[in-house]
Amino acid sequence: MFLKKYYAITDRKQFIYGFETQIKRMLDAGIRMFQLREKDLPADELFSLAEKMEKLLHGYDASLFINDRLDVALIVGATGVHLPSKSLPIENIKHKFPQIIVGKSCHTIEEAVQAEKEGADYITFSPVFSTPGKGKPVGLEALKAVVKAVKIPVYALGGITEDRIPDVLATGAYGIAGIRLFIK
Amino acid sequence: MFLKKYYAITDRKQFIYGFETQIKRMLDAGIRMFQLREKDLPADELFSLAEKMEKLLHGYDASLFINDRLDVALIVGATGVHLPSKSLPIENIKHKFPQIIVGKSCHTIEEAVQAEKEGADYITFSPVFSTPGKGKPVGLEALKAVVKAVKIPVYALGGITEDRIPDVLATGAYGIAGIRLFIK
Repeated sequence: MFLKKYYAITDRKQFIYGFETQIKRMLDAGIRMFQLREKDLPADELFSLAEKMEKLLHGYDASLFINDRLDVALIVGATGVHLPSKSLPIENIKHKFPQIIVGKSCHTIEEAVQAEKEGADYITFSPVFSTPGKGKPVGLEALKAVVKAVKIPVYALGGITEDRIPDVLATGAYGIAGIRLFIK
Repeated sequence: MFLKKYYAITDRKQFIYGFETQIKRMLDAGIRMFQLREKDLPADELFSLAEKMEKLLHGYDASLFINDRLDVALIVGATGVHLPSKSLPIENIKHKFPQIIVGKSCHTIEEAVQAEKEGADYITFSPVFSTPGKGKPVGLEALKAVVKAVKIPVYALGGITEDRIPDVLATGAYGIAGIRLFIK
């Protein structure tokens, strides 16, 4: 099973420790689903980091998604790709690489329904709460509506702190995705 | 045969006509090898343009390379990928997708030898002549040395005008690559 309850998205610039140590600490904390999201990196460096992550996750029952770059996901043998807005079309990816698990960033109920229709395996819905640089929060009611509107797993994302996890999961969201939430 | 004598690299911002018309004019002029190189585009728009090019080239014995994005090349069914500096490693691409034709941008004899060793099917060597924003030209003597140093086809690139083509081909270069050269 590729989709776990907690989904850590990387941002190495916010890491407290070095990349390797920080990922190991997340593994120690029980995280088993990761997204490598380092948008400023050229393909060669992203690839190297993806290879490093694959090695770190080796032996764990953990899944790895690569943000946007399907090619990096394919050549390192990652679980799948996570598509931001303005990324490759889901249908074309699934047609060519049916084994690839595809996630999609959604911010409205319409986007969520569309992503499911196009064949997404899961979505993130964000920003649930206020978080720097991510615009107006959608809130728990909108999250609840999205969870009702689609059958695929919905990960709540954006501004989620530990104390808010029970309320978030009470919406029926499949899991919790986050960046800062998992940096300890 | 995928590698032709003339290799047109796109830069839609320099096109005189609309994208489709400009590509058709190149086809009319006999160009049968193209590289889609539109670095400012997000993956969805690059993919759309790649699909459009595939359609334009349909019925011609023409090959299409996508700059950097192997995933776009794979899902549109392009001939191959052209790797700039800081792109995916050739060996890993070839290992996973042996059918994909891989080109590599080289600027020194060492890079050319290395690219051949890693499995590149062809290289571009640039800038042969002075061209805006591309640094010090390497010149015809360096081009000749690269052609001698590797067995794979070498495309001369950078500042090549029509009157210089005979001198360039006299070095033993397999072909001529260019952006402005083919915009008419």
